[in-house]
Amino acid sequence: MGHVLVLGGARSGKTGFAERLAMRAGEQPLYLATAQALDAEMRERVKLHQQQRHKRFATLEEPIALTTALKAAAKSHDVILVDCLTLWITNLLGTNHDVARAVEELATALPTIETSRVILVSNEVGLGIVPDNPLARTFRDLAGATHQRLAQICTDVHFVVAGLPMTLKGERLTESSVLPPVAD
Amino acid sequence: MGHVLVLGGARSGKTGFAERLAMRAGEQPLYLATAQALDAEMRERVKLHQQQRHKRFATLEEPIALTTALKAAAKSHDVILVDCLTLWITNLLGTNHDVARAVEELATALPTIETSRVILVSNEVGLGIVPDNPLARTFRDLAGATHQRLAQICTDVHFVVAGLPMTLKGERLTESSVLPPVAD
Amino acid sequence: MGHVLVLGGARSGKTGFAERLAMRAGEQPLYLATAQALDAEMRERVKLHQQQRHKRFATLEEPIALTTALKAAAKSHDVILVDCLTLWITNLLGTNHDVARAVEELATALPTIETSRVILVSNEVGLGIVPDNPLARTFRDLAGATHQRLAQICTDVHFVVAGLPMTLKGERLTESSVLPPVAD
Repeated sequence: MGHVLVLGGARSGKTGFAERLAMRAGEQPLYLATAQALDAEMRERVKLHQQQRHKRFATLEEPIALTTALKAAAKSHDVILVDCLTLWITNLLGTNHDVARAVEELATALPTIETSRVILVSNEVGLGIVPDNPLARTFRDLAGATHQRLAQICTDVHFVVAGLPMTLKGERLTESSVLPPVAD
Repeated sequence: MGHVLVLGGARSGKTGFAERLAMRAGEQPLYLATAQALDAEMRERVKLHQQQRHKRFATLEEPIALTTALKAAAKSHDVILVDCLTLWITNLLGTNHDVARAVEELATALPTIETSRVILVSNEVGLGIVPDNPLARTFRDLAGATHQRLAQICTDVHFVVAGLPMTLKGERLTESSVLPPVAD
Repeated sequence: MGHVLVLGGARSGKTGFAERLAMRAGEQPLYLATAQALDAEMRERVKLHQQQRHKRFATLEEPIALTTALKAAAKSHDVILVDCLTLWITNLLGTNHDVARAVEELATALPTIETSRVILVSNEVGLGIVPDNPLARTFRDLAGATHQRLAQICTDVHFVVAGLPMTLKGERLTESSVLPPVAD
């Protein structure tokens, strides 16, 4: 089963688009969050997002061991939405993990996940001025390299602007092919 | 009549593209500027831009009350080019207006404007590294949410890079369908 | 012979894409680098990039006099990959050259280069928040204006995200039309 990469900027509607894709793709979707609800404010935001998602979604938080979590979740979910890779990279950097190696593990594992469709959401961050901050430059390079690597593995890649997809690879989606509300 | 959203980066040629769209779409186009000519330097820039536009354009400045100005202008102009939404959001933030509410008023009013085609130009600002500055993050979130909301309302959405459109929604435009010079 | 403009963000895969285009377009490709190997670290990086390129590429460094170098190189190479325009603009700014004039010279010379296909690679930098730094704003404006001007001259313009092209002008390329490995 082909996997999907959904790229987009901040507040581009990429997560909403990926949720609609996931609802269309499977009956038992899992929302795999790489964000951690570490404080009250964050717990509130996570809770709000959870309420906005269709009730068919189950939710799991995994900030670091993404590949392991994906393999396990594939046993019980036919579609898994990972939101998002850039936050995962941030978490890996913050805990001194080898990002390139973790991404390679993910890229190697994805083709072996055949019973679930994995939808990876990530922030495109490389289209502004070169940041002054060296850590920001490192992060930007890692995010770009990660997107290139996973775009090779995925069968479908979409770039979302203003909530609307541009298809870079795979089946060309238009607003009308994705937007229709999903019956309960 | 369907309305149009034109997104693009800084110096992407989005305004020039929108001007050519407007010339094609109507006989009495209005250029509705959200910028204010507050000082001599700005007045000089505005004057220069005005001279570069086709003489068929009338010009109006409205930094805040955009929806009211649009409704009034629709009585006398068959096409109205709004340049640009991001500057309007900046003006609203600077005067402590409720941006989300103002955007919702605009989104509600647009479908009732049936005698004019409205072409909205806006800066895409969400594809770089997360800004350090909290106000810049707020602005970026508001711009992204505004684009998503208005992309739902508009019948045509284009993303302009290097002066060339990628059509996200509606009639697919190519360079050749838009670029031909308009007779006087 | 039509020339090509390849735009993309940091680590978007734009250079790799342009190298594959160049391998397809000619037998004696030249890699014309605008970067200078001024110190040991930079020499190491340039050497590494050189090793990763197909051995069919010859290499030339020219940080400033790009148009003169292109005209001369066109006599002996059927395809010339310029990597990249944004670094060239940085070099021109750093040596107090008139960037707009240098770009106009390039735009005027390109149509006269008929025996080689020129593939210009450049960074799209205008899709983030307005930079605080005035020099960064100037650079961003110059890069955007340069892309617009050269997009008019080139027959093909591509915008690369995650290693995959979106065609803005000319022959629509898909991953499969470009990615196949080139025989030695």
